[in-house]
Amino acid sequence: MSIKLYGYWRSTATYRVRIALNLKGVEYEYVPVHLVANGGEQHSMDYARLNPAELVPTLVDEDEDIILNQSLSIVEYLDERFDSEHQLIPEHKNERARVRALAQDIACDIQPVGNLRVLNALKGSFDASQDDVATWAAHWITLGFDAIEKRLQTQAGKYCFDFNVTMADICLVPQVYNAKRFNVDMNHYPLISKIADNCNELDAFEKAKPENQVDAT
Amino acid sequence: MSIKLYGYWRSTATYRVRIALNLKGVEYEYVPVHLVANGGEQHSMDYARLNPAELVPTLVDEDEDIILNQSLSIVEYLDERFDSEHQLIPEHKNERARVRALAQDIACDIQPVGNLRVLNALKGSFDASQDDVATWAAHWITLGFDAIEKRLQTQAGKYCFDFNVTMADICLVPQVYNAKRFNVDMNHYPLISKIADNCNELDAFEKAKPENQVDAT
Repeated sequence: MSIKLYGYWRSTATYRVRIALNLKGVEYEYVPVHLVANGGEQHSMDYARLNPAELVPTLVDEDEDIILNQSLSIVEYLDERFDSEHQLIPEHKNERARVRALAQDIACDIQPVGNLRVLNALKGSFDASQDDVATWAAHWITLGFDAIEKRLQTQAGKYCFDFNVTMADICLVPQVYNAKRFNVDMNHYPLISKIADNCNELDAFEKAKPENQVDAT
Repeated sequence: MSIKLYGYWRSTATYRVRIALNLKGVEYEYVPVHLVANGGEQHSMDYARLNPAELVPTLVDEDEDIILNQSLSIVEYLDERFDSEHQLIPEHKNERARVRALAQDIACDIQPVGNLRVLNALKGSFDASQDDVATWAAHWITLGFDAIEKRLQTQAGKYCFDFNVTMADICLVPQVYNAKRFNVDMNHYPLISKIADNCNELDAFEKAKPENQVDAT
């Protein structure tokens, strides 16, 4: 198979790429990289050669001879490489910009501050307990969702932007999954919740769920 | 003037957008938002209406009736809106993806974990000292730069990608500025350093430097 996705079932960045691959109707081989077992398989020499940042996901497209990291970059790449009924980035420059901004509200302002390596570093550097790091993660999700819920009031339809699934939804759904892990009260976010529910009715989102992956435990 | 940039002189995300505006030859009005004075002007009601995330930068393009947050989204918007000799995102889909990935290596994996609000939260939540937070910030820059230095070995020319300035350079230069603030030893990063020096010889980068802004103190 031409496309390989290296990732981890519970990594929300990997989850985004799985959704995008499914929406674009692309068959791919999923290669699990366990972020915890064996001291973290992302630190193995073989994986570090693919991705020197030793993070997931990494996409390998053999036909195009490209090895690509960063989930948002991968999502846009897939959108430009494969035609399908789902255009993940709209045509008009203003809409493109708004979709990217909302995706980055999650991928730059929420996810990086509360991901596994940061929570582990808090434990190591500041003797933070499991409760402390859970509170930390929930704090940044709450701050980010507060702003996103307000933005959605002016633009949302069935999905984040009107009635088309875009890269914004691809980021939102995994972040909602992560929010629930950290017990964020989603009752504060009726629009976010409704959009995530609408997305999850689609096969592409259902198949991409963490619990439906071969490496889920 | 049609374009307004709300930002802060030392914010590296704002710095990126200043470089992009200069490279595209766009005149703009710079509106300082002081992130420290008065409890943080980004939390004022007026600013929060523009940007509910209460973060900088925000770009307002009155002719297009668009208010846009997220620096990378703004950079791509400017590239699509304005013609100039500088194409910040290349034409070919594989090159586009690689440029975006390197920009996101900085904008997703480095900057968000060591920015002002996170460092303040470390002090508040874990009683971290100024030295502690400086060590924390330097740690994530070091991790990120280690990987980027390796990536550049396979692709860099005068700039991150061959001989054209792209969105990757727009992210790299402000991150180098930030690394120096946190005393990261740049001798470990000869390629990053050389590229940053090459960029800083261009007027667009010189004019965008933090110390050259009206709100610099």
